[in-house]
Amino acid sequence: MKQILIAGTVAFDEVTTPFGHSGKMLGGSATYLSFASAFFDNHIGIVSIVGNDFPEDFIKKFTGRNIDITGLFQSEEHKTFYWKGYYYENMNKRDTLVTEVNALAYFNPVIPENFNAPDILVLGNLHPGIQAQIINQLKNQPELIVLDTMNFWMDHAWDDLIKVISRVDLIMINEEEARQLSHEFSLPKAARAIMNMGPKYVIIKQGEYGSMLFHPGGVFSAPALPLEVVKDPTGAGDTFAGGFAGHLSYYDQIDVEALKNAMIYGANLASFTVQDFGTNALENITKKEIQERLNHFVEMTKFSLQMKKHEV
Amino acid sequence: MKQILIAGTVAFDEVTTPFGHSGKMLGGSATYLSFASAFFDNHIGIVSIVGNDFPEDFIKKFTGRNIDITGLFQSEEHKTFYWKGYYYENMNKRDTLVTEVNALAYFNPVIPENFNAPDILVLGNLHPGIQAQIINQLKNQPELIVLDTMNFWMDHAWDDLIKVISRVDLIMINEEEARQLSHEFSLPKAARAIMNMGPKYVIIKQGEYGSMLFHPGGVFSAPALPLEVVKDPTGAGDTFAGGFAGHLSYYDQIDVEALKNAMIYGANLASFTVQDFGTNALENITKKEIQERLNHFVEMTKFSLQMKKHEV
Repeated sequence: MKQILIAGTVAFDEVTTPFGHSGKMLGGSATYLSFASAFFDNHIGIVSIVGNDFPEDFIKKFTGRNIDITGLFQSEEHKTFYWKGYYYENMNKRDTLVTEVNALAYFNPVIPENFNAPDILVLGNLHPGIQAQIINQLKNQPELIVLDTMNFWMDHAWDDLIKVISRVDLIMINEEEARQLSHEFSLPKAARAIMNMGPKYVIIKQGEYGSMLFHPGGVFSAPALPLEVVKDPTGAGDTFAGGFAGHLSYYDQIDVEALKNAMIYGANLASFTVQDFGTNALENITKKEIQERLNHFVEMTKFSLQMKKHEV
Repeated sequence: MKQILIAGTVAFDEVTTPFGHSGKMLGGSATYLSFASAFFDNHIGIVSIVGNDFPEDFIKKFTGRNIDITGLFQSEEHKTFYWKGYYYENMNKRDTLVTEVNALAYFNPVIPENFNAPDILVLGNLHPGIQAQIINQLKNQPELIVLDTMNFWMDHAWDDLIKVISRVDLIMINEEEARQLSHEFSLPKAARAIMNMGPKYVIIKQGEYGSMLFHPGGVFSAPALPLEVVKDPTGAGDTFAGGFAGHLSYYDQIDVEALKNAMIYGANLASFTVQDFGTNALENITKKEIQERLNHFVEMTKFSLQMKKHEV
């Protein structure tokens, strides 16, 4: 059984979308990452920090999923990271209304002994210096280190970011971030430039359009399922990354074929996350629903060109 | 051998893109549509109008591809439709600098007798009233009528557009147009609303992200090949539609599987069009290059989920 160590935030989120107001709810990258990873047969631990106001009920959501919280530090002096956002009509644009960093400002990750040699390390969106500190504490090189980051760190911690990128196997970013990081507009050129910074694999997230995996042998493109309803996009990227890493638990060898399938499973879980507020969908979907949507994806992408039959 | 009748504009285009200035060149929807259709084994005729300044050399580009120009009317009094545009850095935004409608204002399509019972009719972007006039002149119902249109007609000729939409089998539009036409934001909902207006099939073009076919049994999504260089997006949509219709020549029965393959061939040709100015790529690509890129597409989209092996 593979061991996956997940680092990221555990937070309170509050969003308003065209579908309503969420109220204060459980959020944070490590939350979505670990909840999504936990759908697969593996052993997951998180490294994160919460504040003195973090409720026992929320802690139980992790432990109830067999997520090891030895690495979840609870601050006695500070409150939990809090983010409040407002999504516009088309949901691709959002404004941050409030960010209270609180306990996260004092996050000094300590990897517990039982998780210091994970098979897979997922570095959720955090300061790249913190991400590096986590790698530094590992006893062995994992089979795969996955890094998620965002434009904010390109603007504010470029040197640290470049350093940590050089130490990971796979980076996940969106299109605009790939362009900003590489100074290339064309995505294949951007991916190649990023591979030259260190990672063997680059996954470019394209939101409602799907995602692309650039690997040493080429590219794989997975469209997204078109959805009838999107209620709250928060956590979509983290759910994708978590489902991705979680599904890799099933492979003895993490090769391109495994990564391709993992993208499909990650995207599948993310498609549920956005259809309800916060972690509601991840907490409530059934294996049957997941399987049905996978079948739908296979159906949606299936074709068979009869190329031999025709010249063009 | 299938007969395809194509209606649209034949024009002079002039564009400036980040890659340079094209000078005055051959353009227009019927040009791209017919050049792309002509890659397949079929019999193509166009219905369009040009002016007294349209050069013999350009005429020969059609006849040299065995495109029947009996339906191409040449005005003695007016000049050829002329469009001049400027593309911004990311190429998704363009400004129209000059539009001289010229002879097109007097376009009164007359379908020649040898093309009044085509197997496939492609109605390129034109006033929906003109598109209807063309359908009116057919002696038989074609196997497939494909309609291309744009937001301009939604703003300026709504009633005529709704009428012509009710008479076609398949409509091709981009995302924003699908939303405007259906008053639905979600693409599956938009497609369903448009199907309720008449067409059995709706293809939503998503540019660099690919395209989706909504059909009575579900949806097919084809990602686009990520390109290293895009020099001039002009004609991409028309090339897609032309390659799509042209490839259908190979099918005795135009069913969903045929439409899916046709989308892949259409997208393949469009990926060449955008890599050079105007019709240059369509005039110069070889069957070998087309085949190589098709192989690349198959490679890029191939996966095999081992779903039975795992529970999720």
